[in-house]
Amino acid sequence: MAKGLIVQKFGGSSVANVERIQNVAKRVVEYKKKGYDLVVVVSALGDTTDELISLSEQINKHPSEREMDMLLSTGEQASSALLAMAIHKLGFEAISFTGAQVGIITDTDFTKAKIIDISADKIKDALKKKKIVIVAGFQGITRNQDITTLGRGGSDLTAVALAKALSARTCEIYTDVDGVYTTDPRIEPKAKKLPHITYDEMLEMASLGAQVMQARSIEVAKKFNVIIHVRSSFNKHEGTIISKEAKRMEEFVISGVTLNKNEVKITICDVPDKPGVAAKIFSKISEGGVNVDMIVQNVSHTRQTDISFTAPKADLSKVMRITKKAAANIGAGKVLKDEDIARVSIVGVGMKTHPGVAAKMFSALSKHDINIEMISTSEISISCIIKKKSGEEAVRALHAQFNLA
Amino acid sequence: MAKGLIVQKFGGSSVANVERIQNVAKRVVEYKKKGYDLVVVVSALGDTTDELISLSEQINKHPSEREMDMLLSTGEQASSALLAMAIHKLGFEAISFTGAQVGIITDTDFTKAKIIDISADKIKDALKKKKIVIVAGFQGITRNQDITTLGRGGSDLTAVALAKALSARTCEIYTDVDGVYTTDPRIEPKAKKLPHITYDEMLEMASLGAQVMQARSIEVAKKFNVIIHVRSSFNKHEGTIISKEAKRMEEFVISGVTLNKNEVKITICDVPDKPGVAAKIFSKISEGGVNVDMIVQNVSHTRQTDISFTAPKADLSKVMRITKKAAANIGAGKVLKDEDIARVSIVGVGMKTHPGVAAKMFSALSKHDINIEMISTSEISISCIIKKKSGEEAVRALHAQFNLA
Repeated sequence: MAKGLIVQKFGGSSVANVERIQNVAKRVVEYKKKGYDLVVVVSALGDTTDELISLSEQINKHPSEREMDMLLSTGEQASSALLAMAIHKLGFEAISFTGAQVGIITDTDFTKAKIIDISADKIKDALKKKKIVIVAGFQGITRNQDITTLGRGGSDLTAVALAKALSARTCEIYTDVDGVYTTDPRIEPKAKKLPHITYDEMLEMASLGAQVMQARSIEVAKKFNVIIHVRSSFNKHEGTIISKEAKRMEEFVISGVTLNKNEVKITICDVPDKPGVAAKIFSKISEGGVNVDMIVQNVSHTRQTDISFTAPKADLSKVMRITKKAAANIGAGKVLKDEDIARVSIVGVGMKTHPGVAAKMFSALSKHDINIEMISTSEISISCIIKKKSGEEAVRALHAQFNLA
Repeated sequence: MAKGLIVQKFGGSSVANVERIQNVAKRVVEYKKKGYDLVVVVSALGDTTDELISLSEQINKHPSEREMDMLLSTGEQASSALLAMAIHKLGFEAISFTGAQVGIITDTDFTKAKIIDISADKIKDALKKKKIVIVAGFQGITRNQDITTLGRGGSDLTAVALAKALSARTCEIYTDVDGVYTTDPRIEPKAKKLPHITYDEMLEMASLGAQVMQARSIEVAKKFNVIIHVRSSFNKHEGTIISKEAKRMEEFVISGVTLNKNEVKITICDVPDKPGVAAKIFSKISEGGVNVDMIVQNVSHTRQTDISFTAPKADLSKVMRITKKAAANIGAGKVLKDEDIARVSIVGVGMKTHPGVAAKMFSALSKHDINIEMISTSEISISCIIKKKSGEEAVRALHAQFNLA
């Protein structure tokens, strides 16, 4: 009868109101009836987290991060209790736990803590008693008993980490989309759902703007080989399996096209072309806590060169301040910003063994008169910075070029 | 400089919105500036608890009590974090804790748990570091790490228990009234605030319908001799001190008049007048979890008698069901209910040494043509059951009779 353990994670939109909580309960119970053991991770109800953040900002624009975690962790605690009640209503046994109660031990980096250890003894006890276990996502506790939260996508991380700790057969991430698509269906209606994708491809997709799962959770899943199934909480279609090796036809080179409009381009002009100069700039920016992404330095024909890089739009004022200071220190020239950019990328494990993928990409963009401002490549992706207004057109052009429809 | 420790408790209406939270922060900081150490206990914001209860009832009419506590405890956790942020904003150090974090250990009687033990180590550590300590009221944790709540008035109980555990010099209960009055000022505008009242008097006042503090907290305060100061969070007037001995002029016999319209009267007719019969009835009712209050049995001239008692209106259908069954078992007659009653009471430590207080009460009611249906007396109170419509008139009559204005 026992078919093994599944970890299921339901996001905020899946538990946004009473009716949806009841639907989640029904779905969980269906799996229980089939003979699975279940650990269910829930996010806070709908907009609860945003509302709590807004409340805190009215009180203190720069709230203590420890107190912020104390505040925000209540959202997931409440939704897990409500889901337990909804499962009871269907006549099944269920018990909810906070992150602290199940021993999700984290470091003390409040608002973005890292999981150090999971004891999960309470979960194992409850599973032995045939209970459905519900765990408040997004949270943990330090060894000193302070409540922490895990940052953006934290509930996914809770689910993946529990799947690892409990050796679950799979970790289902329920969301408001059917799975991972070849590109954003709102941009290209011909986008197709991918039945399988590798961790590495998904990591590129996630970091490049696909909103399905945060990179951190996928990294952890990859590290511990946790099989993830991303699927919709609103229907019963199979979603996308994320695993080490994707089952896929050999010729299917590219798995997806992504678009990211949340970056800005910064250019430092007239940088002295000496060893160590770039290191100086980027170590300053990194100390400021900004994640710089693409970095392009033109080959220098004189003693000076331009360095461009992209950074998250949210960090613009901070990164400009730091960069200007660093530029002055090394005797460089002006620092320019460009917010009118978009990054379009193609992702696919297959591309590294298929020559000509980059050329095919550039020619597709060129056919549409889309100018490429920066290029960066990785083992499994190629990204181009283009004008923001051409973003959607570029996605459709590449989707067609690589026969993804 | 160190003037000792004060525990301050702010109820839901005192932290109902951002502005009020900020006001509470200001008041706390004023005391800190004066040199006091401070432990602040907060309730959930305004209607949060009611909203959570309503949510849970939509999901499950009979929610698990363990999950209910998991749900409701989030309200106080959130408000304590927000108050900490508000105090930080004023430039003072503060740290918030859940009941679990400060080691408020309770039994496993979910939704109305009793405090067994308080370690308070974390509070002492934080006080040593000169921090203002904020504790989420109303909650604790079992030895098995399940979250519990303490039932109605639970935040008061948290405050009183912490005042005891930390040997605080006083426990201030901030509320939306100025203190304890001789009677409800909405009924008798001449009602006067009492500067002092004894635990016993306050217990009578609380159980008889004065809404200032729940009886449980006062019982604990009395047991451990914790001095309570009930006062308004909206002004700086001195409130009412509740302690063992009230400083008061000898002739001030009666401290207050109370009115309770939330009871019903049940009468069992033709009860066989045999030993043990009353015990049988009331043990059944008590097993049903109903708190019966006044019990009156007429002297029997035949072999049968009538027994009347009062019970909370909320328990009416339950108590009728149990009583009818018990009446049938012992061969008694009909069971009658009367919802058209009110209880008016006078309370005062002085009355036991002053003869004629009861007679004075009855004559005041009689002068107003108010018929008395039942009478009960205790060491420090006399209560009469009268028709509901005469409740307010009776209060004013007694207030005047005993010169309370």
